[in-house]
Amino acid sequence: MRIGIIGATGYTGFELIKILSRHKNVKISAVTSDTSAGKKISEIYPYLSNICENKLLPNNFEQIQEIVDVVFLCLPHGASQEAAKYFFEKGKLVIDLSADFRITDATLYESVYKTKHNAVDVLANSVYGIPELFAEKIKGSKMIANPGCYPTSVILPLYPLLKDNLIEKNMIVADSKSGVSGAGKTPSAKTHFCETNEDFKPYGIFSHRHNPEIDFILSDASPQTHVIFTPHLLPVNRGIESTIYLKKNCNFSLKNVLMDFYKDSFFVRIRKDDSIPSIKDVAMTNFVDINIFENGKNVIIVSCIDNLIKGASGQAVQNMNIALGFDEKEGLL
Amino acid sequence: MRIGIIGATGYTGFELIKILSRHKNVKISAVTSDTSAGKKISEIYPYLSNICENKLLPNNFEQIQEIVDVVFLCLPHGASQEAAKYFFEKGKLVIDLSADFRITDATLYESVYKTKHNAVDVLANSVYGIPELFAEKIKGSKMIANPGCYPTSVILPLYPLLKDNLIEKNMIVADSKSGVSGAGKTPSAKTHFCETNEDFKPYGIFSHRHNPEIDFILSDASPQTHVIFTPHLLPVNRGIESTIYLKKNCNFSLKNVLMDFYKDSFFVRIRKDDSIPSIKDVAMTNFVDINIFENGKNVIIVSCIDNLIKGASGQAVQNMNIALGFDEKEGLL
Amino acid sequence: MRIGIIGATGYTGFELIKILSRHKNVKISAVTSDTSAGKKISEIYPYLSNICENKLLPNNFEQIQEIVDVVFLCLPHGASQEAAKYFFEKGKLVIDLSADFRITDATLYESVYKTKHNAVDVLANSVYGIPELFAEKIKGSKMIANPGCYPTSVILPLYPLLKDNLIEKNMIVADSKSGVSGAGKTPSAKTHFCETNEDFKPYGIFSHRHNPEIDFILSDASPQTHVIFTPHLLPVNRGIESTIYLKKNCNFSLKNVLMDFYKDSFFVRIRKDDSIPSIKDVAMTNFVDINIFENGKNVIIVSCIDNLIKGASGQAVQNMNIALGFDEKEGLL
Amino acid sequence: MRIGIIGATGYTGFELIKILSRHKNVKISAVTSDTSAGKKISEIYPYLSNICENKLLPNNFEQIQEIVDVVFLCLPHGASQEAAKYFFEKGKLVIDLSADFRITDATLYESVYKTKHNAVDVLANSVYGIPELFAEKIKGSKMIANPGCYPTSVILPLYPLLKDNLIEKNMIVADSKSGVSGAGKTPSAKTHFCETNEDFKPYGIFSHRHNPEIDFILSDASPQTHVIFTPHLLPVNRGIESTIYLKKNCNFSLKNVLMDFYKDSFFVRIRKDDSIPSIKDVAMTNFVDINIFENGKNVIIVSCIDNLIKGASGQAVQNMNIALGFDEKEGLL
Repeated sequence: MRIGIIGATGYTGFELIKILSRHKNVKISAVTSDTSAGKKISEIYPYLSNICENKLLPNNFEQIQEIVDVVFLCLPHGASQEAAKYFFEKGKLVIDLSADFRITDATLYESVYKTKHNAVDVLANSVYGIPELFAEKIKGSKMIANPGCYPTSVILPLYPLLKDNLIEKNMIVADSKSGVSGAGKTPSAKTHFCETNEDFKPYGIFSHRHNPEIDFILSDASPQTHVIFTPHLLPVNRGIESTIYLKKNCNFSLKNVLMDFYKDSFFVRIRKDDSIPSIKDVAMTNFVDINIFENGKNVIIVSCIDNLIKGASGQAVQNMNIALGFDEKEGLL
Repeated sequence: MRIGIIGATGYTGFELIKILSRHKNVKISAVTSDTSAGKKISEIYPYLSNICENKLLPNNFEQIQEIVDVVFLCLPHGASQEAAKYFFEKGKLVIDLSADFRITDATLYESVYKTKHNAVDVLANSVYGIPELFAEKIKGSKMIANPGCYPTSVILPLYPLLKDNLIEKNMIVADSKSGVSGAGKTPSAKTHFCETNEDFKPYGIFSHRHNPEIDFILSDASPQTHVIFTPHLLPVNRGIESTIYLKKNCNFSLKNVLMDFYKDSFFVRIRKDDSIPSIKDVAMTNFVDINIFENGKNVIIVSCIDNLIKGASGQAVQNMNIALGFDEKEGLL
Repeated sequence: MRIGIIGATGYTGFELIKILSRHKNVKISAVTSDTSAGKKISEIYPYLSNICENKLLPNNFEQIQEIVDVVFLCLPHGASQEAAKYFFEKGKLVIDLSADFRITDATLYESVYKTKHNAVDVLANSVYGIPELFAEKIKGSKMIANPGCYPTSVILPLYPLLKDNLIEKNMIVADSKSGVSGAGKTPSAKTHFCETNEDFKPYGIFSHRHNPEIDFILSDASPQTHVIFTPHLLPVNRGIESTIYLKKNCNFSLKNVLMDFYKDSFFVRIRKDDSIPSIKDVAMTNFVDINIFENGKNVIIVSCIDNLIKGASGQAVQNMNIALGFDEKEGLL
Repeated sequence: MRIGIIGATGYTGFELIKILSRHKNVKISAVTSDTSAGKKISEIYPYLSNICENKLLPNNFEQIQEIVDVVFLCLPHGASQEAAKYFFEKGKLVIDLSADFRITDATLYESVYKTKHNAVDVLANSVYGIPELFAEKIKGSKMIANPGCYPTSVILPLYPLLKDNLIEKNMIVADSKSGVSGAGKTPSAKTHFCETNEDFKPYGIFSHRHNPEIDFILSDASPQTHVIFTPHLLPVNRGIESTIYLKKNCNFSLKNVLMDFYKDSFFVRIRKDDSIPSIKDVAMTNFVDINIFENGKNVIIVSCIDNLIKGASGQAVQNMNIALGFDEKEGLL
């Protein structure tokens, strides 16, 4: 299969290139960037010299569609809609890493992102790409919305528990911490080294856009679930750790429920012992590491991912693998 | 006043020396260490050359008591009891930075620390040294238990709210993150650079010793308060950020309550606007920065301190200043 | 004395405010910023709440000169010339933290900074402000050029050795490493957290502007001295370490020469033993820590400073103290 | 081929397992550790769950030799000698990551390492494993001494220049900086997080053991070459940057010499433009990135590697690939 990466110069594009260069069944045919077109991607990322020597193409979709079978969209939300619509209508497999196709309720999307949705017909075809939960829908799909990084870490442990009504659905707190790469590659005061290094703080209190995404997907497991979600900026390059507080409804072990639910999911590792997952256990991998601690009705879940891999580009490739019938793990080990 | 610092080579001793070297009303007469006695403290910390050229003395209390009026105990819990008892009985002002005199219920202390308390009579005289809450007791006291770092960050914002019964006292979650200096100066696998740098994780889930300390002090504000407290190890040298989740009982603004309660407390800065406190705003200072965010009944408090200053040595000096009638701020700006 | 800080919102302005707030003999009367005028400096740096509550004034020099006796200029090179000229002609003590008045040879300045020097008359009055070398000229001066951070770390150990012709003056290599705050507060790709954290690299090879500054000042000790100087970007907030390689000309100990030369310089600490100075020994202080290692004719010097204190704002205050006859250390401990 | 990793719980063992798990032509049959025998390696490194589920075996060489064809020795220097001798005599391919077989002059080895060499016969068979320089000897060898991390970064750019007598061989300064993983996994004061984070300093001035190793190998290119080498501890997990200062002897471009010499070496990337190599360009890879800057006779070389990959485990696998006739790149991309 021939791959196109649209908007390839950001961090998710860079990770996609690293992963896909190792992938046996695909070939990167197009990497694009309007601002850097004409340069080689290895000039932007010298890391890629001798690994990927593609030249960046401008975002001329007509030309690109002729040379690709699969497109990964690494565009800002809003901008993704037009691109997704174009390639979807050409029959390509579209995997969108923006937020544009995650919340399939257009009204909710518009209220959260303060912008009209201009591809509502495509939205109706969109599948939310957490393979461990929605593999059946992903197989054969042509329009996959790749999940947000924070939502991936929060939804994976909660979904099975909510589905079986084992926990209080309105007393969930998710205190999440992310490495700085989650904020992207564009310099800003917030991500200036001296402001972030040796610092730590929450942001987006009661207002982060991943909160409605989390609630929307979890409400599929149990209607009207609401999580109190607070993201924090962690002075590391990559990784997310979510500490999730909840009350259980039942008297049996939730740990067994999770272990059973994910027993065939290669990339979900529920700890058997009482060790505590850590960002370094999953950094640079597509794994999510989870453990659950129960103390009477009080429950604490710890969930860790690499925000750029399982939280973005790795999961995107995992979605592609499933959609196209490849081995789920191809390129990801 | 002549000062003795018992166990001066750890991080809290180092910070005490830095602060007290700037203090107008005191003189450091004794710094002690059994393992490094005979060396100058500036050999251990070259930072202190030209600032403090004291030689480390062995822990011979009989000799030390002759040359000091105030002692700061920077010893491990357990070891502090004997030293506190000795100096207290000699009539010295004792400020203990260990956990030995914080929980004045000996039975509770023993169940948490798994060791007998051997100075129960002194324990009865001990005052918990958060000056903004207990200044009246601290004035003229001779035995001050300096609070834990995490408890300082959690108790300060919650105490006034619990005292006035404005919040649910059994639905409080405190998700706290601390810099590595909180773990002390002794090398361990946990604090090895490569294990901690670029990593992040919780620890002591449902079992950290600061949890009973928090509950014990807050129950003084409102009986049987219980906080679900989870500490995390942050890859920075210093600072604590606590994100506290709670439900309020009332319909008016809790922010006004906090601002009013702390209006005369120089070192407590309640944010007037909706900015979010950050570790860098308080690092290397004795301030605690707090803001409170209210969304219906859901409330999130952000509380930041420097774990070694307001969470240890700075608060210890603030306690000394109050106990001896000095300006509360002396040495701390 | 009434102090004005022109361009107060950058890192050197911030450090000046912290230091001067502790200074017994001065009062900050004006802090300025064109872009943030009207705001309080504590809104920009919440760290300063309760410490400095001054409002930022626009750069209206006519109004400012009425309320200040001393001005610290924290402006970009080029912009400093006009401000220095204005305040110097009004008879104020001017301490310029930019590069505009360091190289008193206007032709050399212009070739290095690629801009005309518009205050050549003031330049003629300028003193290079390393107090340990040029105190006599600084006393009573009205125009002090505060040295560059890298040059401070390199010049201090080399000047006495060159002056006495003890080393080869054209076989000196200075391999210097600086924390990121040296690059200032404006976000850029170079200082974006994810690009700098966990990375390390040299920059400005054979071309950094501090190289001519180093050569110009050292040539005052020994004509036509040339140092091969390479700066590197270190993933820490602050601090400079310079490892300096040279050949000695003589058979006696250079260490004794340095110890003797700096025996009365409080802020220069030449190590007596063979311990190696480290950034953490000087961070947040005005000290420079130096040691020298001799192996036959091969010599290695290690020199460490805090780039924002001894390398900028601390040295600026030290210069003010000397110029005005205050205790050199006031505000700096 | 069946692989044994002796002393598998340290950082080089961990990296070997990650690399070899991806390798098409081999299978890990034995991972050993005396202190952790019986545990799974994935209990020590949860990162490895689902990737390598081998149990750690005790160092019973007799049993191990039956199940392996290749052994990687990740033992401290000194301890490696006996193991190497044992497996070498059994006809296994031995790749030793310690310092024991790098300096093939036993007298020099003993004077540097202050310990007798007990496998002098094996030493005589040892090949220094920088594949880009010594591939011919590595092919078919049974005893490969894997180079030190610092030496790899310094020798690669200098060897071709010295061989052709293009540079002064006694005026070379190598100022090298390494991430903390170079110090290994055992906690120590030096590698305690709070001591290393936000700090930077040189160590081993005029005395580091990699200096004789560098001189010994480079003297093979040009007799009696001596480099002044100074290592520094960089507050990052991994990576080495060496800034090398030298004088050239000739009037033509050394850059062309390096580009030509390494034109067929996949893992050596000589920059074509004047960009500066950076640790992040090579971290987690087996590449060495080099650029050379010439200014008259003065030359500065910048050389970057990942200390655990090209500086240890990656190069070890590259050596195995060459010795066994596999594709040099297998497992390393």
